[in-house]
Amino acid sequence: MCILLRNISGLATPAEELPPYEIRIIEDAIIAADQGKIAYIGPESGLPPLNIDAVYNCRGSFATPGLIDSHTHPVFSAAREHEFHMRNAGKSYAEIAASGGGIRASVRELRKASIEYLVELLRDRFNGFLALGTTTIEAKSGYGLSFMDEMKSLRALKELREHPLEVIPTFLGAHEIPDEYRGQRESYIQLLIDEMIPAVVSEGLAEYCDIFVEKNVYTVEEARRILTAAKNAGLALRLHVDQLTSGGGAELAAELGAVSAEHLDYISDEGIDRMIEAGVVFNLLPGAVFFLGHTKYPPARKIIDKGGIIALSTDFNPGSSMTRSLPLMMTIACVYMGMSADEALASVTLNAARSVKRNNIIGSLEAGKQADIVLWDIPGHDYIPYHYGENLVNCVFKKGRLVYRKPECGDNREFD
Amino acid sequence: MCILLRNISGLATPAEELPPYEIRIIEDAIIAADQGKIAYIGPESGLPPLNIDAVYNCRGSFATPGLIDSHTHPVFSAAREHEFHMRNAGKSYAEIAASGGGIRASVRELRKASIEYLVELLRDRFNGFLALGTTTIEAKSGYGLSFMDEMKSLRALKELREHPLEVIPTFLGAHEIPDEYRGQRESYIQLLIDEMIPAVVSEGLAEYCDIFVEKNVYTVEEARRILTAAKNAGLALRLHVDQLTSGGGAELAAELGAVSAEHLDYISDEGIDRMIEAGVVFNLLPGAVFFLGHTKYPPARKIIDKGGIIALSTDFNPGSSMTRSLPLMMTIACVYMGMSADEALASVTLNAARSVKRNNIIGSLEAGKQADIVLWDIPGHDYIPYHYGENLVNCVFKKGRLVYRKPECGDNREFD
Repeated sequence: MCILLRNISGLATPAEELPPYEIRIIEDAIIAADQGKIAYIGPESGLPPLNIDAVYNCRGSFATPGLIDSHTHPVFSAAREHEFHMRNAGKSYAEIAASGGGIRASVRELRKASIEYLVELLRDRFNGFLALGTTTIEAKSGYGLSFMDEMKSLRALKELREHPLEVIPTFLGAHEIPDEYRGQRESYIQLLIDEMIPAVVSEGLAEYCDIFVEKNVYTVEEARRILTAAKNAGLALRLHVDQLTSGGGAELAAELGAVSAEHLDYISDEGIDRMIEAGVVFNLLPGAVFFLGHTKYPPARKIIDKGGIIALSTDFNPGSSMTRSLPLMMTIACVYMGMSADEALASVTLNAARSVKRNNIIGSLEAGKQADIVLWDIPGHDYIPYHYGENLVNCVFKKGRLVYRKPECGDNREFD
Repeated sequence: MCILLRNISGLATPAEELPPYEIRIIEDAIIAADQGKIAYIGPESGLPPLNIDAVYNCRGSFATPGLIDSHTHPVFSAAREHEFHMRNAGKSYAEIAASGGGIRASVRELRKASIEYLVELLRDRFNGFLALGTTTIEAKSGYGLSFMDEMKSLRALKELREHPLEVIPTFLGAHEIPDEYRGQRESYIQLLIDEMIPAVVSEGLAEYCDIFVEKNVYTVEEARRILTAAKNAGLALRLHVDQLTSGGGAELAAELGAVSAEHLDYISDEGIDRMIEAGVVFNLLPGAVFFLGHTKYPPARKIIDKGGIIALSTDFNPGSSMTRSLPLMMTIACVYMGMSADEALASVTLNAARSVKRNNIIGSLEAGKQADIVLWDIPGHDYIPYHYGENLVNCVFKKGRLVYRKPECGDNREFD
């Protein structure tokens, strides 16, 4: 299948050979996608001979690469809107936990759910990502926290491997200490190291191992042991660190050669330097700061000025950031973290691809890369963070296939 | 035309006879709409004899009243994304103004636009409101600031009177002092009073007169003169007040018997009391606070605790709040202003109707009111502010007619 996208008003993309926050603008380009990859991008006059099967009229839409959400927790059962409203009414996290809330509430619900039910939920959730322009996500387990429930979570993701949304699975068995191990955390850590990680690897269920390093969750020392075991078993590493307190997590990510360290609201200057030296991507999640009503955002400007690579992600999860909208993350990053339009776009495309080690195949519109393309009803990419809280996506292509198109308004009847 | 909505999972609505923030939940209701009005709402067993023309299968969607956005500025020509990014890069308002930005930039652009062009822009913008669940808006002029350009703006709104989005027009000729009157503001005020207001009234172009009372814009004394003239000419009043500084604007709104006073980020305690005594609606615009990167939100809890009526609006405009999403306004109001799910819903439905004096016909799902209905893919109304930054609307009815339905995902080809 070879398709040609015509009547694109312009496109904006980062590129492998450009500096990490630089955006290339091409006006009047056409894109040819052959066998799911970009075969040509440029002026129509330069189109090489190709057997075109179909021409798609983009009607003046503006193109960007498919967006990449490099930190999500989509494998949950029940939503937690009740907790959201308790928090806004002034209840503390401790009170909410005492009333049965928090990650542990999601663990309770996920354990009750069948894999078939999870797959159905995930299919709907995946469609929602596509509709917002996201064509690839990193997706974590972490609400099972038992051998079988973590395996169930990752297997549910694998069941959907034919879904157009591309998924990079991460094992997050170390999201919390499960209730039944509260008095014996060392036993849970042994379970992670001796049984869960080997099983995940042998079944090919995850590419990454992740852990939540935070006061009252996992210590830096525990994380070092668990992640070292994961690395030795063949998993790449990413870490939740420095979200609520500065605890040496960024430094640990650098020490272990993690691909990505995530949240970083309280990262130290030392942590920034160590991560840059080690080439770890700074994966920032402004939605969690916003949704929790916090005011301290991660220090994006400082990171950029020092030369760090930033990815922006939604943190999609039922407790601390219930959204799949990367465009809204771009808005928050621009307004509250001082990022520019170019920086925001690069951070949800090529830099996000870097945070999942896929920058050789996705994240930019360049010949040879996957034809993951979003067409937007916008005049240019700086409009994406500006016109906020709405879906400006016109249509989405994944590997050269149309997977979403926006609806028409009007009297579109559907009566029985 | 009489239609029946079946298979609604539940509905949430305020009601005329309930306290202003109380929400009634009805499970397993059906809704019959006859001649554009709600003929029946309640259990199927109680349906009176009606000549049903069609049955709509709601497939388990959850219903609320059509949302009402009671403060918008949709009549503009060019967007101002460039200014947004300048501001985020640290440029001051004064620097942006010096480079040609601000309201005056929109005035320059609007004056160049033909009425036909404005009507086309508005039609698209109106469709976007419907898609987000908004079935009625209050819409202001205010980027013309000359006799002909203000008339053009209001006439463009009137041209769309057949569009399903219902519009309540407001004359905001006193949005700013236009450039050509900078040295002679008194002449512009006389133009407003002697020519523009009478013309607006005689052509039936507006229901309200509005003014921006703020340091360096209009003074309280000027506003009193202009609004008194407007009132005497037959217009109802609403005011932009206390947005950036506390300037006695809320007190003026109370003194003049305005229907609504808007923004109110810096309202004084005295202003709150005066507005409550006078029955003025508190029209709060959290999107403008968010979008401008401010941190001081209007004191919603204090207003509610004292007994004030709050409406929440988007402030949709190209400079300080480029969104049509009332659900996102609800999210911000919950997280940053401590509002509950019930308070947020009431503030974008019946209380918003109160802020445009339409609460006798819209704003709640009750027999006899207009059949303005949103069907959502949600389990209950407390989910709307929780799942943020996405469009959870399944379909929208205006006066009993289906005017929006969400798209399907999947390989929905549209090739030439």
